[in-house]
Amino acid sequence: MIDLSRFFSDKYAALTPYTPGEQPKNRTFIKLNTNESPFPPSPRAREYARRAAESLHLYSDPTCAALTAKAAEVFGVDPDEIIFTNGSDDVLNFAFMAFCDQDHPACFPDITYGFYSVFAELNGVPYTRIPLNDDLTVNVQDYVNRNATIFLANPNAPTGILLPLADIETILRGNPDNIVVIDEAYIDFGGESAVPLIRKYDNLLVTQTFSKSRSMAGARLGMGFGCKALIRDLNAIRYSTNPYNINSMTMAAGIGALEDEIYFRDNCRAITENRAWAARQLDNLGFRLTDSSANFLFARHDSISGKALYQALRSSGILVRHFDTPKLTDYLRITVGSMEEMKAFVTAIETILKEATL
Amino acid sequence: MIDLSRFFSDKYAALTPYTPGEQPKNRTFIKLNTNESPFPPSPRAREYARRAAESLHLYSDPTCAALTAKAAEVFGVDPDEIIFTNGSDDVLNFAFMAFCDQDHPACFPDITYGFYSVFAELNGVPYTRIPLNDDLTVNVQDYVNRNATIFLANPNAPTGILLPLADIETILRGNPDNIVVIDEAYIDFGGESAVPLIRKYDNLLVTQTFSKSRSMAGARLGMGFGCKALIRDLNAIRYSTNPYNINSMTMAAGIGALEDEIYFRDNCRAITENRAWAARQLDNLGFRLTDSSANFLFARHDSISGKALYQALRSSGILVRHFDTPKLTDYLRITVGSMEEMKAFVTAIETILKEATL
Repeated sequence: MIDLSRFFSDKYAALTPYTPGEQPKNRTFIKLNTNESPFPPSPRAREYARRAAESLHLYSDPTCAALTAKAAEVFGVDPDEIIFTNGSDDVLNFAFMAFCDQDHPACFPDITYGFYSVFAELNGVPYTRIPLNDDLTVNVQDYVNRNATIFLANPNAPTGILLPLADIETILRGNPDNIVVIDEAYIDFGGESAVPLIRKYDNLLVTQTFSKSRSMAGARLGMGFGCKALIRDLNAIRYSTNPYNINSMTMAAGIGALEDEIYFRDNCRAITENRAWAARQLDNLGFRLTDSSANFLFARHDSISGKALYQALRSSGILVRHFDTPKLTDYLRITVGSMEEMKAFVTAIETILKEATL
Repeated sequence: MIDLSRFFSDKYAALTPYTPGEQPKNRTFIKLNTNESPFPPSPRAREYARRAAESLHLYSDPTCAALTAKAAEVFGVDPDEIIFTNGSDDVLNFAFMAFCDQDHPACFPDITYGFYSVFAELNGVPYTRIPLNDDLTVNVQDYVNRNATIFLANPNAPTGILLPLADIETILRGNPDNIVVIDEAYIDFGGESAVPLIRKYDNLLVTQTFSKSRSMAGARLGMGFGCKALIRDLNAIRYSTNPYNINSMTMAAGIGALEDEIYFRDNCRAITENRAWAARQLDNLGFRLTDSSANFLFARHDSISGKALYQALRSSGILVRHFDTPKLTDYLRITVGSMEEMKAFVTAIETILKEATL
C-alpha cells in the first residue's frame, strides 16, 4: 500500500482493504449495485429507531437483552445461542479472530464474498481459496476433511447459487474438529437456513444480516447463531473490542423489524417474484444466468463484455456491479430492486444490446 | 477464561474482556456510574437521526463525507485529518493495531482507562503500565524516550486530572519515532485540546468521542485527528474490518450535534458548574478529591471505605463506580449529572456519613 505513515506496523504490509460498491453522490442512479433492498425498513423499525433517538445520551445495552430475546423467539433458539454485531462483517471478523490461527487456517471458495480474504490477511491467518466448479457451483467433497476453518456464503455471492442443507451437513460432519461458518446474508430470498442445525453440530456458526431482507443496510445489524460455547467465544472477542458495538437506535429498529414478520415476508416475496421476472427477460435476451437464490442476478452475455455492459448501463443511469477479475469479468451482478427498477433495467439492456449489434 | 469452546484460538488464552459499568434494568437508579450526560442529545441531532431512520435500507456512506466536512469546519482541520469510528473504542483499537507490535510495545499509566490493556492483549502487543505519582498525577519525564507507543487519557480516567499542552508537547518531542495517542474523551469539560498540534507533530493521534459532552453515548460515535498519513493508516484498518462501521442515523445525529454548538457549550458549562458545586459539598463533608477536569469526580473519605460507600449509595438508589483494585479501592468515581441529581447525591452522602459515625 502506498502513502501510509512511517509508523504503520509491518504486520499489515500486505493488507488490501475491501472496496465497497460505489455510492455516487452527484447524480441520481437506479442503484442495482450493492444488494440493498428497494423497500424502506418496516414502519415499526423506523418508529422504534425514532423513539430511541430521544435518549441517545445513555449507553446502549451491551448485552442486547431485548433484541436478543425477540430474536430467540423468532428464530426458535435460546438467547445465549445468538450474538448481535455491527453488521455481519463484525461477526465474520470475530470468527476469523476466534477460530483461525496458524494451526487453524481458513478456507473458502475462490469466488465468494470479497471480505473473507481481507479478514484473513488482517488477522494474519493463512488461507486457501478453493476453486468453484466450472459452472460456479461448490464441489462439496472439496470441503470434507479440510483441517481448516471453512467459510461458505450460502447462497454464495456473487453467484447466488444455493447449497442444500444436506450438503452443509456433509461438510459439518466432514470437519468435526473445525468450525464451519455458513454466511446466510442472502438466505431469506429462497434458501433453507442452517440455524436449526446449531443444536446438532457444535462446530457450526451461522451468520445473518438485517441489511438485505430486513431493509436495514444503513443501520448495521448482523448476528451469529451457534451453540452456547461458540457464542461465549465470540462474546469474549466482542467484550474485548467494542462491547457497545450496537447503538441503541439500531437495536430498537432491529426489534421493530423482527416484530413485523408480515412486512418482511411480503418484501422477500416481492424480491423473489421480481427476480424471476427479470431472469426471464434476460434469458429471452440471450443472457446466461446462474440459478440465483439471492436478491441479485449474476449474468453474462456472449456479445458484450461485462465491463462494456456495466459502462453502458452506467451511462443510462443504472448502476450494477462488475468485478474486474479474470473469472468474473464476463459477468454482472445485478441487485433485484422494485418492479419499476427492473423494468427500467431491462429496457436499458434492450437498447444497449440493439446498439451493440447494429 | 472458563467455558469457552474447544475451537477458541489459543492466542487469546490470556484475554480478560473489559467489564462495562453496570446498567441495571429492574430498578430506577440515579445513574452516576458510567459518565453519561444527564442531558438528551441536541434537538437537531435527534431530528436528523429520525430523518435518517426513514432510509435505512440504503448503506451508510463509508467515507462519512458530510459528517467529516462538518467536523473539519468545527475543529479547524482538513477532512483528511479526521477519521470517524463506532465509538472512540474503535479508533483506539485501530491505533493498537496500526501502531503497536512486538517492536513497538504500548505504554500507559497504571491507573487509566481500563480498555487499553484489553486492546493490547487482544492484539498481542507487549505493554508497560507506568505508575502514576502518589498524588495520581502523571510524571511527564516517565514518558520521554519511551521507545513505545504511548496512550494517555487527558484528562485521565478515573482521576480526572489534566495534563497541560506543554507537557504533551514534551512527550511528543521526546518520542519522535513513536506514536503518542491522546485520548480526549473528557476534554470538553475543562481541558485544552491537542487537536491543533496535529499539524506540528506527525506522531500525534488525538481521539475524541460524542458519548460525553455531546450526549450521544447510545449512538456510538468517536473520532481521531492526526496528520493525513496517520489517518490513511487508520482507514486502511477500518476498510479491512468494517467500512460501514458507522450507521446512517448516528452519522446524521453527529452532524446535528456539531451544528448545535450553543447547546453543546451550554451543557459543558452546566456540567462544570455542577462539578464545582458538588466538589465543594464533598470537600465540606471531609472528602479528598482529585482536581477533576472531567464530567466526574474522584473522591475518597477517611472514615468509610470506597466499597462500603458504594454499597450504601446503591441502597439509597444512587449508582456510582467503584474499582475494586488495590490503588483505587478507597475511591469512588461519581459522574457529574444534573444539579437535581447532584443534590440528591450529596443528601444521600450526608445521611450515610451521619449513620457511619454514629
